[in-house]
Amino acid sequence: MAATARVLVLSGPNLNLLGVREPEVYGRTTLPDIEAALARRAQSRGAQIRCLQFNGEGQMVDAIQAARGDIDGILINPGAYTHYSIAIRDALAGAALPAVEVHLSHIFAREEFRHESVTAPACRGIVAGFGPNSYLLGLDALLDLLEEEITHG
Amino acid sequence: MAATARVLVLSGPNLNLLGVREPEVYGRTTLPDIEAALARRAQSRGAQIRCLQFNGEGQMVDAIQAARGDIDGILINPGAYTHYSIAIRDALAGAALPAVEVHLSHIFAREEFRHESVTAPACRGIVAGFGPNSYLLGLDALLDLLEEEITHG
Amino acid sequence: MAATARVLVLSGPNLNLLGVREPEVYGRTTLPDIEAALARRAQSRGAQIRCLQFNGEGQMVDAIQAARGDIDGILINPGAYTHYSIAIRDALAGAALPAVEVHLSHIFAREEFRHESVTAPACRGIVAGFGPNSYLLGLDALLDLLEEEITHG
Amino acid sequence: MAATARVLVLSGPNLNLLGVREPEVYGRTTLPDIEAALARRAQSRGAQIRCLQFNGEGQMVDAIQAARGDIDGILINPGAYTHYSIAIRDALAGAALPAVEVHLSHIFAREEFRHESVTAPACRGIVAGFGPNSYLLGLDALLDLLEEEITHG
Amino acid sequence: MAATARVLVLSGPNLNLLGVREPEVYGRTTLPDIEAALARRAQSRGAQIRCLQFNGEGQMVDAIQAARGDIDGILINPGAYTHYSIAIRDALAGAALPAVEVHLSHIFAREEFRHESVTAPACRGIVAGFGPNSYLLGLDALLDLLEEEITHG
Amino acid sequence: MAATARVLVLSGPNLNLLGVREPEVYGRTTLPDIEAALARRAQSRGAQIRCLQFNGEGQMVDAIQAARGDIDGILINPGAYTHYSIAIRDALAGAALPAVEVHLSHIFAREEFRHESVTAPACRGIVAGFGPNSYLLGLDALLDLLEEEITHG
Amino acid sequence: MAATARVLVLSGPNLNLLGVREPEVYGRTTLPDIEAALARRAQSRGAQIRCLQFNGEGQMVDAIQAARGDIDGILINPGAYTHYSIAIRDALAGAALPAVEVHLSHIFAREEFRHESVTAPACRGIVAGFGPNSYLLGLDALLDLLEEEITHG
Amino acid sequence: MAATARVLVLSGPNLNLLGVREPEVYGRTTLPDIEAALARRAQSRGAQIRCLQFNGEGQMVDAIQAARGDIDGILINPGAYTHYSIAIRDALAGAALPAVEVHLSHIFAREEFRHESVTAPACRGIVAGFGPNSYLLGLDALLDLLEEEITHG
Amino acid sequence: MAATARVLVLSGPNLNLLGVREPEVYGRTTLPDIEAALARRAQSRGAQIRCLQFNGEGQMVDAIQAARGDIDGILINPGAYTHYSIAIRDALAGAALPAVEVHLSHIFAREEFRHESVTAPACRGIVAGFGPNSYLLGLDALLDLLEEEITHG
Amino acid sequence: MAATARVLVLSGPNLNLLGVREPEVYGRTTLPDIEAALARRAQSRGAQIRCLQFNGEGQMVDAIQAARGDIDGILINPGAYTHYSIAIRDALAGAALPAVEVHLSHIFAREEFRHESVTAPACRGIVAGFGPNSYLLGLDALLDLLEEEITHG
Amino acid sequence: MAATARVLVLSGPNLNLLGVREPEVYGRTTLPDIEAALARRAQSRGAQIRCLQFNGEGQMVDAIQAARGDIDGILINPGAYTHYSIAIRDALAGAALPAVEVHLSHIFAREEFRHESVTAPACRGIVAGFGPNSYLLGLDALLDLLEEEITHG
Amino acid sequence: MAATARVLVLSGPNLNLLGVREPEVYGRTTLPDIEAALARRAQSRGAQIRCLQFNGEGQMVDAIQAARGDIDGILINPGAYTHYSIAIRDALAGAALPAVEVHLSHIFAREEFRHESVTAPACRGIVAGFGPNSYLLGLDALLDLLEEEITHG
Repeated sequence: MAATARVLVLSGPNLNLLGVREPEVYGRTTLPDIEAALARRAQSRGAQIRCLQFNGEGQMVDAIQAARGDIDGILINPGAYTHYSIAIRDALAGAALPAVEVHLSHIFAREEFRHESVTAPACRGIVAGFGPNSYLLGLDALLDLLEEEITHG
Repeated sequence: MAATARVLVLSGPNLNLLGVREPEVYGRTTLPDIEAALARRAQSRGAQIRCLQFNGEGQMVDAIQAARGDIDGILINPGAYTHYSIAIRDALAGAALPAVEVHLSHIFAREEFRHESVTAPACRGIVAGFGPNSYLLGLDALLDLLEEEITHG
Repeated sequence: MAATARVLVLSGPNLNLLGVREPEVYGRTTLPDIEAALARRAQSRGAQIRCLQFNGEGQMVDAIQAARGDIDGILINPGAYTHYSIAIRDALAGAALPAVEVHLSHIFAREEFRHESVTAPACRGIVAGFGPNSYLLGLDALLDLLEEEITHG
Repeated sequence: MAATARVLVLSGPNLNLLGVREPEVYGRTTLPDIEAALARRAQSRGAQIRCLQFNGEGQMVDAIQAARGDIDGILINPGAYTHYSIAIRDALAGAALPAVEVHLSHIFAREEFRHESVTAPACRGIVAGFGPNSYLLGLDALLDLLEEEITHG
Repeated sequence: MAATARVLVLSGPNLNLLGVREPEVYGRTTLPDIEAALARRAQSRGAQIRCLQFNGEGQMVDAIQAARGDIDGILINPGAYTHYSIAIRDALAGAALPAVEVHLSHIFAREEFRHESVTAPACRGIVAGFGPNSYLLGLDALLDLLEEEITHG
Repeated sequence: MAATARVLVLSGPNLNLLGVREPEVYGRTTLPDIEAALARRAQSRGAQIRCLQFNGEGQMVDAIQAARGDIDGILINPGAYTHYSIAIRDALAGAALPAVEVHLSHIFAREEFRHESVTAPACRGIVAGFGPNSYLLGLDALLDLLEEEITHG
Repeated sequence: MAATARVLVLSGPNLNLLGVREPEVYGRTTLPDIEAALARRAQSRGAQIRCLQFNGEGQMVDAIQAARGDIDGILINPGAYTHYSIAIRDALAGAALPAVEVHLSHIFAREEFRHESVTAPACRGIVAGFGPNSYLLGLDALLDLLEEEITHG
Repeated sequence: MAATARVLVLSGPNLNLLGVREPEVYGRTTLPDIEAALARRAQSRGAQIRCLQFNGEGQMVDAIQAARGDIDGILINPGAYTHYSIAIRDALAGAALPAVEVHLSHIFAREEFRHESVTAPACRGIVAGFGPNSYLLGLDALLDLLEEEITHG
Repeated sequence: MAATARVLVLSGPNLNLLGVREPEVYGRTTLPDIEAALARRAQSRGAQIRCLQFNGEGQMVDAIQAARGDIDGILINPGAYTHYSIAIRDALAGAALPAVEVHLSHIFAREEFRHESVTAPACRGIVAGFGPNSYLLGLDALLDLLEEEITHG
Repeated sequence: MAATARVLVLSGPNLNLLGVREPEVYGRTTLPDIEAALARRAQSRGAQIRCLQFNGEGQMVDAIQAARGDIDGILINPGAYTHYSIAIRDALAGAALPAVEVHLSHIFAREEFRHESVTAPACRGIVAGFGPNSYLLGLDALLDLLEEEITHG
Repeated sequence: MAATARVLVLSGPNLNLLGVREPEVYGRTTLPDIEAALARRAQSRGAQIRCLQFNGEGQMVDAIQAARGDIDGILINPGAYTHYSIAIRDALAGAALPAVEVHLSHIFAREEFRHESVTAPACRGIVAGFGPNSYLLGLDALLDLLEEEITHG
Repeated sequence: MAATARVLVLSGPNLNLLGVREPEVYGRTTLPDIEAALARRAQSRGAQIRCLQFNGEGQMVDAIQAARGDIDGILINPGAYTHYSIAIRDALAGAALPAVEVHLSHIFAREEFRHESVTAPACRGIVAGFGPNSYLLGLDALLDLLEEEITHG
């Protein structure tokens, strides 16, 4: 790992409309707001982030593949793809980088068809239910993992 | 809503080959034929349509997101994505526009794995089983909804 | 088929109370209101309708059987029987008349035990989710089918 | 509600043979015996009952629909229809009257296909397993509900 | 049992149209044809039959209940109700008469939703798949049972 | 059975907070209120009650085991343990005392994971859905059972 | 078909012990008793039978394969193999001979794991529940089929 | 909320042996180690924690009930009870305090019977998969929630 | 039972290769080794054993049927047939001899498709998971059963 | 392991009533009777046992945790907890001691909801169906395991 | 491995009738035709084959067991046993020889009960859907595996 | 078909990283290596290949649609899309070209969620489990099919 931890923050379909559509449900915080907060948090911990958002599954696979080399860890909110994209899961598994999955809402609390994450097995851990703060906590978790690997691994 | 109702007609994967491939199964009516008939029907009701077709799931999400602003309703045939695209469903749900789902074949009549629509919950209603006429009936249904909203809402 | 298309409009259990009970949920349009609108729409297309409503499953089977001879198509809202009446389904299949199934609510949008239609496989197509307008769109669909058969069949 | 609570006691298929057939299994108490006991209990609480039994599902729906106006509550033992009559359930839900479901046997104690009640969700509560006494306890429960509504509602 | 075995032959919904509708699928033998053959077979064995057909579930329950007293056994083709009528099953179980279930088609051969018979557990045995001959074989089976009971029981 | 029927009233986890927490959902009646009403009802019928509440599954088993000797029947609201405590069920089955299960809410009306009662098979009957009144109706049911056993058994 | 119909009567595992073991459950009629009765019935109808019993699945497949040429129809009681032998089913399907499946007990009446027949789809029909008489009724059914084919086919 | 946020840290069965048993699987960090780290983190954010561990389900319910009054939020690792304790879930739901669920391992990543959390629906969010760090991240999440409520609520 | 208990030790498919193939998985103890140990244990308890192994299902049924007369109990390891041989189960049930099922591995500990034993219901008990010692413990269990029957039965 | 093998015999809920309640079902042997027989068997093999019984799940976890240090193996009959206590399973898995699970009845022979053991995967093997003798056979199995480990391990 | 690769070609039940029965479905190529083609293909690659076909499951297990010593690989078409023979699967797993499974038809393309292969997990790979050519492609695959092992292993 | 068979070789998501990432799992052969081997094999059989790889589902649909006209058959490894892309399946079905599906690993051997192929029904056959050699065997199978069609079709 480079001296400065570099994190790819990858957001899935429809997250680009966060805070714009249905604010009464999802709040008024936009994805750029979250990314700015993540950048500040990263900076305060001596890390860097690169933020991407895609509506297409293949584009997300491309981005994960491209992460190799100059990225040390992935913070991912796969959005709707959480529930069926084996392609993204395989890409994460093949990336050989620590990944942390985050969700704005508490997806495991609902007793419905969406409660399963097929991408989670390719991630180290998961943070869900805290709204935009899930991203920040997820970044902390990922940076802790990366620092631990520097120290121990 | 603008004085003239503007409808996005969005068709999913492989519908571009309608009437071209396997005509003995699906008939000889092409997607352009359907779109022309829809345009005439729309015009006769004082409405306008814009027609798009995509094979990619992300492209369909993009198109739905882009509909905001200059579109009043969505007529969608999600094709194969009907059965698994939570991303398109979320896009429709987030679009805050009335949507009507149409299918050429009677997908709910078959007792097989395909009979479920994951996109339907994000639509107002559904028309299925009438071949190309499903599109026309769906357009009528959508325009009726839009007119009703002008009157009552 | 006779020169004037004759359509049986058959409504199932509890639909006789439409608009009377729980109007805040189902609206104030009554079944007679719908039937009057259907009659006007039929007349405008040179067709005739006969309207029946039953609470009993056997009565609905009787009515479908009796349709033979002087009826050209069936517009049916099986109500609660949609979800379990194989008897009505068999009657429709045996009637050898085009049938169209309509539902006021969007039964395929709900992720619950009611989302399955056992009668649908005996119908040509389905229209659901548009409230009383489902009946009118269904009548259009049925008359289009009948006209097409006159022309092509 | 009228000064005197009026309760419809509605029994489903085959309950007319109670105490007549298979007495070694179901005991020798007949439905008229139960109805007489219910009448005495009702009278002692200043209420009136009207008792009906039907083998037909549609007849039960008819009876529930007809209850409107001169009935304040429904005590129902749907018999075999408990397990599949969505039509009766819809009728109960549409009746806008408090209903209590009773069963002679302990239907929820058996681990078999019959343990589910599709009509229960349209009732306020359920009493099951006490033989003919289930009817009496159910009447008490229903009259308590009606009195409470007079007082508080 | 009376000196002459008396058998109720009970046919369910849509069987009245046997041989009339869809003859290319179900053949040209009508229900009256079958009943006549049954009468001849019964007579040849010194038995009598009474034949009834109903489209309504409640009517079939009524007929089974009425069989008590002057009927020694029941030959039943429940038709579509085979698959869901717990009410008919309960009526058969309560009738305390030997019953035999027959089906024209081989319902247990099809791997589909209809392969289950909920009425069968209330019958002694089943004959399925031999077209109209199923009725005749079923009658033989039932008369054999009745004769055996005279001899041994 | 002793001259005076003695009933153990056993309430499961979190019922001690009834009326205290979430009163807008569960009302303001507390468990002591219910127990007082039960005591009055018991006294009016010449019976006695002993009331216990536990959060622990083992404690409930202990209490049921200890009931032997000086208790004639058990009125139980197993609370959350209703849905998974085979241990309580075995204890009830082994106690050889009539038991009645009560629930404040209508647990069989909800179409969710909680609708199953594993303890019910060890009880004579069930009363559910009448709020605090479920306890009183259950006590009536239990005392009726006990009196009947004195008379007939 | 030869002038004299020749039928293979094939019985599966453990049927050789019929009437010998557990007579209180299965009666005292032995397989040779049944085969003798079948021979008499066949003779009375101008037919011949050949009877075989095997405990091995492969032996049953061998026997069905060997039936080709000098056998016109198969009467089979697959015994336990009914529930899982796809090999016997394939052999029956490949034999291109009419087959009738019989069962002593009413296997479709039991709500358990055994109620499914995987061999039935390769047979024309089924007779079950009449004890040894199932074989005789099945033979009648098979000979009726063979005679009909001589006449019509 | 008091000026100083007070958090109950509640750990379930077998977590007292963390770091002691099977250290090659679960690491050498003990529960007291985790609790000490939590105390330091809490102190650094001006909060206080109280730490409890129980093997008994009822004890955990007791502890959650006792939290009312002098506790502002609950950080819970329900251990094995995660997968079946509706009692703990009800206790959390009734506590009317924000709760955060943490897991050392990534329970949602495993495709096995344990992947479901019945307690999660009573919590605001979840943090899983980061070993002892899950507790620290969960505490951050909970304190963020509490601070947000001070500010906005 | 004869003065000397005679036990049939029956081993199913592939057990003849025990200790020969994959010794690193199944150990180096061969089936003859086990049978010798069983003979010594039997002798020490005044009993005799006869040992058989078959790869064929029908052969195992044959052997169980042949056990009648000169065998007092059966010790069986059905091997792979444990999971699907209803024929062996029926043979065991018909043999009217006490049987004990043994397994080298702990088949009920694995959460997979193989964990079900269809033969177990025809046995008195089961011993599994102790490698070759399962056979010895099973023999003890069987001889204890046989001795108990001599004493009490 | 110490020179003298020390075994913890742990019995779950309601087993303290063995032989006392429902003796017609479970026999008249009490748990103390079994424990005395176990002590004799242990002594004869130079081993010692300590016997505990609990109704509470947490108490059983406590006892398993406390076994560490002065116990060499665990003989456990988890009773009702067999079917749902992941907590006991985790405790057994964490104890790092050989454990053997015993059941009085043949739990795997019943085709019902109870046939699954969630605790079994944490045990070496299982003995079920031999009544009180299951405990003795289980003790033999456990001591054999312990002796083998002394010799080989 | 010997200088000349020796392959056992093992075909399951009813494959001996390939090309003889139902040629309109399965074509006119017989098993001897296939085996001759396999022999030519083997010879051209310097390998030898031995061909066996059995209807019995035990016979197939016997043949696989006997393969040890003078066979280097197994080409197997288990026929109907594909779907349930755990015994054949165990035999293949125990043979410690590379095996390739072939199917004439495309068994994984059909959405029915047969689409699962229980024997496949004991094979290296699978070739299905190419009719008789599946055998030839499977032989190529197997010989490639054997050659690779000579070279690398 | 043209004189020279032209084959589209289409590989799905993440296959571009074959041999690059996780070589210890998937080996060191890259997709270009495989494509070169396929080209040589094609050339040796007088055929041509065109190789494409995409991470996006829509791109794969586009490529299949574009195959029409100058391609005679498709060799496809859908990668992760195998398990859910109905869109690719529809594209293959509509292409009216023979297709062969290949997989590097033995996807049908694993008893997990991935064992199902939704694309397979649109292919003629399948080759799985032979690593890179699956592609070569699949090409042989496809070319054999194409040659056979030239000869016979």
